[in-house]
This record gives sequence, C-alpha cells and structure tokens, in this order.
Amino acid sequence: MITVTEAINIVLHQTRVLPTEDVALVDSLGRYLGEDVIADSDLPAFDRSQMDGYAVQADDTLRAPARLQIVGESAAGKGWHREMKRGEAVRIMTGAPVPAGADAVQQVELTREIADVVEILKPVIAGRSVVKQASEIKAGEKVLNRGEQINAAMIAVLASFGYAQVKVGRRPRVTVLATGSELVSVDQRPQQDQIRDSNNYSVGAYAELAGAIVERLPLVGDRTEELKTTIVAASEEADLVVTSGGVSMGVYDFTKTALRELEAEIYFERVALRPGKPTVFSRLPNGTLVFGLPGNPVSVSVTFNLFARASLLAMQGAAAPTFECEWATLRTTLKGSADREGYLPARLTTSPQGMLLADPLKWGGSSDFVAFARATAMIVVPAGVKSLEVGTLVKVIKLPA
Amino acid sequence: MITVTEAINIVLHQTRVLPTEDVALVDSLGRYLGEDVIADSDLPAFDRSQMDGYAVQADDTLRAPARLQIVGESAAGKGWHREMKRGEAVRIMTGAPVPAGADAVQQVELTREIADVVEILKPVIAGRSVVKQASEIKAGEKVLNRGEQINAAMIAVLASFGYAQVKVGRRPRVTVLATGSELVSVDQRPQQDQIRDSNNYSVGAYAELAGAIVERLPLVGDRTEELKTTIVAASEEADLVVTSGGVSMGVYDFTKTALRELEAEIYFERVALRPGKPTVFSRLPNGTLVFGLPGNPVSVSVTFNLFARASLLAMQGAAAPTFECEWATLRTTLKGSADREGYLPARLTTSPQGMLLADPLKWGGSSDFVAFARATAMIVVPAGVKSLEVGTLVKVIKLPA
Repeated sequence: MITVTEAINIVLHQTRVLPTEDVALVDSLGRYLGEDVIADSDLPAFDRSQMDGYAVQADDTLRAPARLQIVGESAAGKGWHREMKRGEAVRIMTGAPVPAGADAVQQVELTREIADVVEILKPVIAGRSVVKQASEIKAGEKVLNRGEQINAAMIAVLASFGYAQVKVGRRPRVTVLATGSELVSVDQRPQQDQIRDSNNYSVGAYAELAGAIVERLPLVGDRTEELKTTIVAASEEADLVVTSGGVSMGVYDFTKTALRELEAEIYFERVALRPGKPTVFSRLPNGTLVFGLPGNPVSVSVTFNLFARASLLAMQGAAAPTFECEWATLRTTLKGSADREGYLPARLTTSPQGMLLADPLKWGGSSDFVAFARATAMIVVPAGVKSLEVGTLVKVIKLPA
Repeated sequence: MITVTEAINIVLHQTRVLPTEDVALVDSLGRYLGEDVIADSDLPAFDRSQMDGYAVQADDTLRAPARLQIVGESAAGKGWHREMKRGEAVRIMTGAPVPAGADAVQQVELTREIADVVEILKPVIAGRSVVKQASEIKAGEKVLNRGEQINAAMIAVLASFGYAQVKVGRRPRVTVLATGSELVSVDQRPQQDQIRDSNNYSVGAYAELAGAIVERLPLVGDRTEELKTTIVAASEEADLVVTSGGVSMGVYDFTKTALRELEAEIYFERVALRPGKPTVFSRLPNGTLVFGLPGNPVSVSVTFNLFARASLLAMQGAAAPTFECEWATLRTTLKGSADREGYLPARLTTSPQGMLLADPLKWGGSSDFVAFARATAMIVVPAGVKSLEVGTLVKVIKLPA
C-alpha cells in the first residue's frame, strides 16, 4: 500500500493544468489567478489627505493657535494645483490631493474657520495625515501572484489597477456518479435493504467548493457494461470523473472491473488511509482522469478532499493545491491503526489562552456522516501509532465548508 | 459615539428575517436552513456489515480455525432474509444487511472459502464489524437545526433523509453603489486627481460571500439629487442598499445629505471604530435598509463585514449572524486609540505548539487595501488601550475569504 503523501504526489504528477480564460472582474471571486497582477500606477497616485481639514506647512503651526489665509480648496477628484506658500492653508477633504508646498493636514476638529482665514488651534507635525505618493505601492510592482485564489479583498486590488478582465484558470468540469444496486435517489422511499444515495450530492458539493462545474449522473447499478458505458460517456465531456462505491475488496468491485475492462491505467487502488483504503486513481485511454472513491459517505468525503480536491485545484493552476497542516492539542484519546494513516473527523476551537484545540467526534465509523456534518477538521493520526493521549499535539487539516 | 457592539445590536434589531423558500438539494450549499431536519428513518436502517467477509455466530469461531456451512449471500441492496443457524455462515459485502441469527462479521482476509464451506481462520467477537440498526440516528431524531448554514457534509445528511427540496432563507437582494466625483470605473484610465473605484467590486464580493444576490450600479457622482434618485430606485427592488463614500465629516457628506432629504430614519452615523468611524445605518420611508459606508477601501471592508454582513445573515435566518471571536497571541506591538475600538488587519497562523498567532499587517492606514488583501483576520483592540505588547492575548475575528 502506498502512503497518503505518495498518493497525493501521484495525483499532482498526473494532473495537467487547464488553459486560462479571461473573466469579468465581477465573476473572478474564488478563481485562481492565471497571471501576476501588476500595479499600473502608484498607490496613492498622489500625496493624499487622510482627514478632512486644512493642508498647511507644519512650521506655520508651531506656535498655535495660528491664523492662516485660506487660498483654495482641494476635494477628492478636484485638487488645488497651485503652490501653497507660508502663511497659507488649503481647505482639504479626505482622499483629496495635498497641494504642493503643504506638508501636513490638520484635522477640521482642531481648527476654526472665520471668513477666509482658518485658525489652527493645535500644532501639527510635518507629514501628519498625509499619505505620500507611492508609499503603499509603486507603479510596476507585482501586487498579486499567479496561482493565488482571488478573495474579496483582492477584488479591490484588481479593480484599482484596472483589471476589468482577469486571467484565471478554467473551472474543471467534473462528472459525478454513484454506483451500487442498494441505492435509490433522494426523492424515493428506500425499500428493504435499500438506502438513499448521498454521495452524488456531497461529492458534487465538495467539487463545487473546489471550483468545479459539476454534472451529477443518474444512479448507476452494478452492471459492469452499464457502468463502462456511463464512465466513457462521462469522460468525453469531463476533465475529471468521480465515482463512488464498487471498489471494495469483495467480488463486488464493479468500478475497478469496469476501469480494467476499459483499459484505464490504474495509478493506485489501495492507500494506507483510514477511512478510505480502497481509493482508486486512474486514467482512461482518452486521457480523462477517474477517481474511484469508496461507497461509505465519510470515506468519500475524506478521500475526495485529500485526492480529488488536490487534482481540481492543480487543474486551475493553484499555487497551493493541497491542504495546509496545522497543529492542535487533542482533547480526547484517539486510537490509531497499525498500518494506515488516520484522518478522523474533529471539531476545532480556540481556547481563551489562544490554543487550538481538537475534539475528535464520537462516530460510529466510516458511515456516520451525521456526526461528520459537524466536523470542521480532520485529525491526522500517523500509521503505527496505537493511541494518542489527551494533551498530545496533533496535526489537523481544516475541512472546506 | 456608540460602540461597535451597540451598533451591531441596532443592526440586528432593525433587520427582519426574509421569508423562506424551497430550493433543490443541489442548490442548497451555503444556504441557511429554514427548518429543522428530521431523520425519516433509522441510521443504519438495518444491522449493517462494515466489511466484506462472512456473517457468523461469534461462538462458532471461538476455537478457530472453524468450518461453517455457507448458506447464502448478503449483498448491498439484496440481503439474505432467512434466519442463520449455528454452524452456518453467510457471505456478506460491505454495507449489506447482517442476517438474523448472525452477531458478527469476520473479514474476508481472515477466512478461506472451499466449495460451500468457509474456514474462519481467527476467532471473532460478538458485534465485530456490525453497525447495529439505529445506532447512529433513530427515526424522528433532529439531525440539523434551523438557522445552520448548509455545508457539503450536511448535503449528504439531507440526501439520506429524503430532502430533495430544502427550505432555506431567501437570498437578500443587495444593491451596491459608490459615490465620489474622484472615481472612474475599472476600465478607465484615471486622470489627474482621479482614482478607480474598487468599493463597488469588493463590497459586491463580500455581499456574495454573505449569501446576497448583488446588483452593482454605475458610479454616482456627488450631486445630491442624482444620488437621491439612485438610492430610491435601488431601494425599490433591494432588501438592502449599500453605498460607499460621501459620509465624511466635511461639507462633502453627500450620502448623509441625500438620506436626510429622503427622510430616512438614521439609526447611527458614527461608531467608535477604527477604521470606519463615519458609518451610517438608516431606513428609507419605504422600509429598505441603507448602509452608508466610508469611502476608504479598508474602512469599507471592515464596516461591511461588521455591520452589513450581520444584517444579510440575519435576513437569511442565520442562527449566528455575527462573527465568532477567537483568541490569539500577538507577534508585533500594536497601537490603540483613545476613544475607538480598533479592527486591524492581521494574518493568523498556528505554531507547531498549537498556538494561534496573530501578525498585524504593516499598513499605511485605512486606504492600504493591497496589504489588506493578505489579511485573514482582524485584531480587535479595545478602546482606550494605548498599545498592545508582543505576547499579549488578543481577540481576533476571521475574515470571510
């Protein structure tokens, strides 16, 4: 069996980055930058006032109160573009350009205007309430990097530097299908021995969180021929096919049988992972990647997020396609497995002492997806560790919500 | 000036919950549950095998190796529904129903099948690899609560219990407009004293993250009449109008002037907050709420997330419309303000010791939105605190990405 890390490396090695596309700025939230973002102007573009008040020469205010002649007004969008001299002041608004000759702004609350004279009530030091041109960003500077995911604050950066269109990684098309003759769809009442399919829905949701455009196929039973036809049809349009079920060790491993008969190259089919050992990763002869995930809902969530999510992010050119690991203090004893790395559902909280705490969720096993719905993270339990005691520092991975 | 907490309470008090609507399960990710979710069946619905192997009576395996007669097969979706007797075994697949009379499953790796007899190589204890009916959830039990935000794992829960349609809070319609004669749109080259608008884009993105359907209006200058007409038109269709700019203390507070002339009820117009003091919250005579946010990009992000986000989440019936506070250890000295609570951009990390660490971002002030784009949190600095030293425990709020 290969380790989780080895499996992820194989996935990333086999994944090809999709071409970039140009999208409107308003559609770029959550996408991955396909280009470096360069400032096309200084920030600020001019010396800018941080306050409503009066632009002055600081020296003129040393012996405040001081009376200065108001010679003009500088508003945002409409500056005062002559040279201000000693003894003069310019009325100024927040965000407006500070005139040449002025070196400080005294806030309006510390002034009194009488006719065309302002009384500066308190001294102001040079530089006060003035943000110098280019002090934040110089024109030509790189402000965002290719491969970063665009958050709401970055949208403001893109807007400011004129990116009405943004080059981003294309969203992968993912086709999701669930196998198993015990499954009925969500709008049906299960009969004896049957259960409703949930994997098509949760895998689809996780794939959307990973940036994919998702198509969910109707349930496929466990007839190999039907499964083969469905997988081939799905792979024509999709960048990635994700199946669930039919990969167990018994005679009922329809998915693996179908992939073999389709002459898929199977990169791995067993990972030293709990839950999720029988995860399959393969490529069809037409080049489309296929993940065959286990059928249990918790296994499906764990394996999708460890492997398929990494592939989807890599397709979009993400600089960091895998989860960041963090460390937390364990609050309940946890059992490990002799030969498999555990990824066990947990809730993370922060203590009033600023400590990250991990509470493993009581769960019935790999099928208890009701408990899993409250998980915010997975605790990583190294293979061969018999048990982890309360207070141990454990590696944790935050789950996408 | 009112405090941030007082302002948030006013916002929540003035916000009305929108009606719920039914959406298809595949469209429910990220929405807020408008109903409690009840299990319509036990989970598992029957005693279920966790392994591929053989259903047995544990007593029969005490003196393994033991030979048992194979009397049937139980597959997922197609159980074996007679009573299994002593000396017998039933071939069983992961997820399949465990037959009556059997009390354990021995995994296939510890067995050997010869014709219609199976040799159980190692003893198995009663209960092993069997998940008892209803051991996870009993029919009728509440599994998710009204007001929870639906994550990908909850989608599996909804699917399993037959929620093909889900009752959720309606998405609020938000109209966003930016004021200021210095602004040009993203596809224009700023001339002298001009800057590109970024607030319409970032506010729109934050509103989308808060679940809203966003309409961005073209730039409005600073002519009061035009602003009044635009606000009124926007308020006809929107549940919430968010403006930016035009609320400073100078003579250029167009937004407040427009709101007053429209006879809006102004609930607050100054908050003891840094950055973001001149935030306005009001209601037009037609009932629509209007936030007048400051013009600086960082102030806009801070005030949107503290106030408008809470309103949008409350409209959707969120059980927790405000941010959760956490505690982190400060890694750089921070300055406070005498009379205002600070919400200062920071990056959060976790140390290998499981400590949450807060690194304040070096920033030029409320306009340095390039630095803010890398913030993952805000550090809350209480009013009246002169400075916070390295190592202090500080309250932090994670920013929505």
